[in-house]
Amino acid sequence: MGKPEVDVHGLLIRRNETLATAESLTAGELAALVSGPSGASRVYLGGVITYATALKRDLLGVRAEQVVSAECAAQMAEGVRDLVKADWGLSTTGVAGPDLQEEQPVGLVYVGVASAAYTSVVRLELDIPTGEEQRALIRSAACQAAIAALAERLSAEQP
Amino acid sequence: MGKPEVDVHGLLIRRNETLATAESLTAGELAALVSGPSGASRVYLGGVITYATALKRDLLGVRAEQVVSAECAAQMAEGVRDLVKADWGLSTTGVAGPDLQEEQPVGLVYVGVASAAYTSVVRLELDIPTGEEQRALIRSAACQAAIAALAERLSAEQP
Repeated sequence: MGKPEVDVHGLLIRRNETLATAESLTAGELAALVSGPSGASRVYLGGVITYATALKRDLLGVRAEQVVSAECAAQMAEGVRDLVKADWGLSTTGVAGPDLQEEQPVGLVYVGVASAAYTSVVRLELDIPTGEEQRALIRSAACQAAIAALAERLSAEQP
Repeated sequence: MGKPEVDVHGLLIRRNETLATAESLTAGELAALVSGPSGASRVYLGGVITYATALKRDLLGVRAEQVVSAECAAQMAEGVRDLVKADWGLSTTGVAGPDLQEEQPVGLVYVGVASAAYTSVVRLELDIPTGEEQRALIRSAACQAAIAALAERLSAEQP
């Protein structure tokens, strides 16, 4: 096993399947990771960064009232899968800090994984100390969790 | 002056203006940079990663025949500015390698900056040696060039 994003890349290539991303708090970092391996364009099609709440609704059809919620993560993953016409949709939403959002604590993150079969959501409570690096560390941990969640689904489900 | 992305953040806040991004070869890395500073949601609305060529057309209305071109960079910046309803659109397209694309050399990059007033394009010929890090270095240099191009426009034009 190498870097998790390279493993995901390999799993997708073997299945001849494609991936799209929808990001809120990670804001592009997840896409940059999954498109890092050379030859990434064979599996990674693209995605959206819906940082502003209105974009989640307008681009992805999110109907959830709370942005920091399992419902929102699920609808983002499903929405981007439809928008990009990919086999898999992968999403992140949560609170990178330094301020609370919707009265939810810094470090609360939801990751969504959507395929044609079903959508799953992982909830994270990242306990990262306040400070200059907190925001970057939360974003980075959220990306790693998203890639791990996708890898688990890819490994568990036969194409 | 601090990090360029923090300077851009400050310039946009002073003007009370917003930013959207459209990325091809940088694939989210530019968005991650401009949304890095805390409080980024005041100026950064979101954007798209149009890695697959069809997405450039479907999401951004790109009509350029060549993806690695000034026309494509300009149309991506204008398209994402419209899609996201932002004051500024910032785009990247080019060849991160290791393979040529459209017979264009690795390291050829176009950056687009669109405002209500006009659209400008910067052409880069990045001379970065072949090797394991080439792809990451080209993507990173393209992001820095995009931020510099936006900073120049923001500094030159009165709101």
